[in-house]
Amino acid sequence: MNELFTVHQFPASGNAAELPDEVREQVCAFAFKGHSHLGAEIMDAFPNLALVANYGVGYDTIDVAHAVSRGIQVTNTPDVLTNDVADLAVGMVLSLNRGIGGASDWVTSGQWGSAGAYPLQRTLSGASVGIAGLGRIGRAIGNRLQGFETDIHYYARSQKDTPGWTYHDSLVSLAATSDIFIVAVSGGPDTLEIISSEVIAAVGADGLLINIARGSTMDEEALITALQSKQIRGAALDVYNNEPNIDSRFMQLDNVLLQPHHSSGTIETRKKMGALQRDNLSAFFAGKPLITPVT
Amino acid sequence: MNELFTVHQFPASGNAAELPDEVREQVCAFAFKGHSHLGAEIMDAFPNLALVANYGVGYDTIDVAHAVSRGIQVTNTPDVLTNDVADLAVGMVLSLNRGIGGASDWVTSGQWGSAGAYPLQRTLSGASVGIAGLGRIGRAIGNRLQGFETDIHYYARSQKDTPGWTYHDSLVSLAATSDIFIVAVSGGPDTLEIISSEVIAAVGADGLLINIARGSTMDEEALITALQSKQIRGAALDVYNNEPNIDSRFMQLDNVLLQPHHSSGTIETRKKMGALQRDNLSAFFAGKPLITPVT
Repeated sequence: MNELFTVHQFPASGNAAELPDEVREQVCAFAFKGHSHLGAEIMDAFPNLALVANYGVGYDTIDVAHAVSRGIQVTNTPDVLTNDVADLAVGMVLSLNRGIGGASDWVTSGQWGSAGAYPLQRTLSGASVGIAGLGRIGRAIGNRLQGFETDIHYYARSQKDTPGWTYHDSLVSLAATSDIFIVAVSGGPDTLEIISSEVIAAVGADGLLINIARGSTMDEEALITALQSKQIRGAALDVYNNEPNIDSRFMQLDNVLLQPHHSSGTIETRKKMGALQRDNLSAFFAGKPLITPVT
Repeated sequence: MNELFTVHQFPASGNAAELPDEVREQVCAFAFKGHSHLGAEIMDAFPNLALVANYGVGYDTIDVAHAVSRGIQVTNTPDVLTNDVADLAVGMVLSLNRGIGGASDWVTSGQWGSAGAYPLQRTLSGASVGIAGLGRIGRAIGNRLQGFETDIHYYARSQKDTPGWTYHDSLVSLAATSDIFIVAVSGGPDTLEIISSEVIAAVGADGLLINIARGSTMDEEALITALQSKQIRGAALDVYNNEPNIDSRFMQLDNVLLQPHHSSGTIETRKKMGALQRDNLSAFFAGKPLITPVT
């Protein structure tokens, strides 16, 4: 980016006022990364801001409505990370369902030799998998898991064209049907805590809950209570409220697999995300159509 | 089994001579479980033995040639465990390739909060997957992994009818092509250490090796050396020589995922395996054709 553009780093304090006025007035575009809130106050400190180019597919922390009202365009990096996110979701399903982490500890601690066979786990084939949200990522998860002889169900705002998957018009219905319930909806105000205590209860004592979407989609207090009381069998989580300083009660649980929001965290994909963010910036400065606008 | 048959437990010492002579003479069938050697000496201590019903698909520790020479039939439990073994294999691939175990430690140790993002891993999509052995289990692994947008290659004694997978007539050729090399051949003398130092070297510094077959298929000394010297990127192993007291050098490595030979270790599948072993015994005692004979 330094080769292509004049780059100014945003202050680590998050306070735009720390930038010289002439810089704030020059800035036409943001190259944005991370999950901090990008709201009206920051945007309005840059009178000539016309583009926010996000690094990542989810842009729930960007106040898009305010951007639109000011004529600021927003881009994201869809598609290039879909495979990695779906791969991690399936990896989390298999790891949790088959106890791969505990089995690894069983070997390295020497218990295999001293205490015998590792406790039996649960089979995946024949299970009902419920996918909440059938966008690009939800669909990629379904495409993978149908190869495991599972029965795919999904929730979305409307029925989709799918290879024999079963549509549910409510999250509670989906959760009640699912042995494995995977959250793959977008973040943002529309999905705030839609994985409610009622939905979590419907996952049931034999069910697993997987979240690779956003922590904001989850009633996290209800989830922790359900895990503590074994109201659900277990959870595998890549996303949380208050990342990376997540609720310490998660670390006390023996029925969770915790991942550090790295679903797109591969060398290959992060390069592609950076390239797509940069190409959106280049298109903007060249006066060409943006490649992946969200507005 | 106690309801259907007169059951005698084999002595824990492994010494048939500890059984009373009249018991040894009465025994017509073995219900065999585990991976200890079942050779001529034990079989010949039972003059009326006519069936060895194995619990498991692999029967490499049973001296089938000697059984055949004595007219003793052998059965196993194929098919019922195929899905679970393939699921664990894919789970091990994803867990190793995406560093799921290390990522879990990153969260629970608090490093996510204190040290920042987890190190980037490698993407799976677009990778070449090589499957050594395309029996039921190898094929089930391929069926799953093709859903991850990988390129499937395989080695077998002869070319098979597959959905666009690439045949290799040598293990070295397969390993050299593979980013992810999965061992799924049968055990036994024909495959003893066929994953030789030469094959392991061909996996290469960027490659991962997965073994869900048998420890006997591997030159384990060469594998440990390759892992220590980073001649290969990593290994995920469910099987070893000398289980469960495996070579302690494995526990010192930071580029392995170790599993305690539990690829069929689910409640559902173990019930099916037990039922199939029992049904073979019932068929034998009823004078009906055996369900899953191996000879």
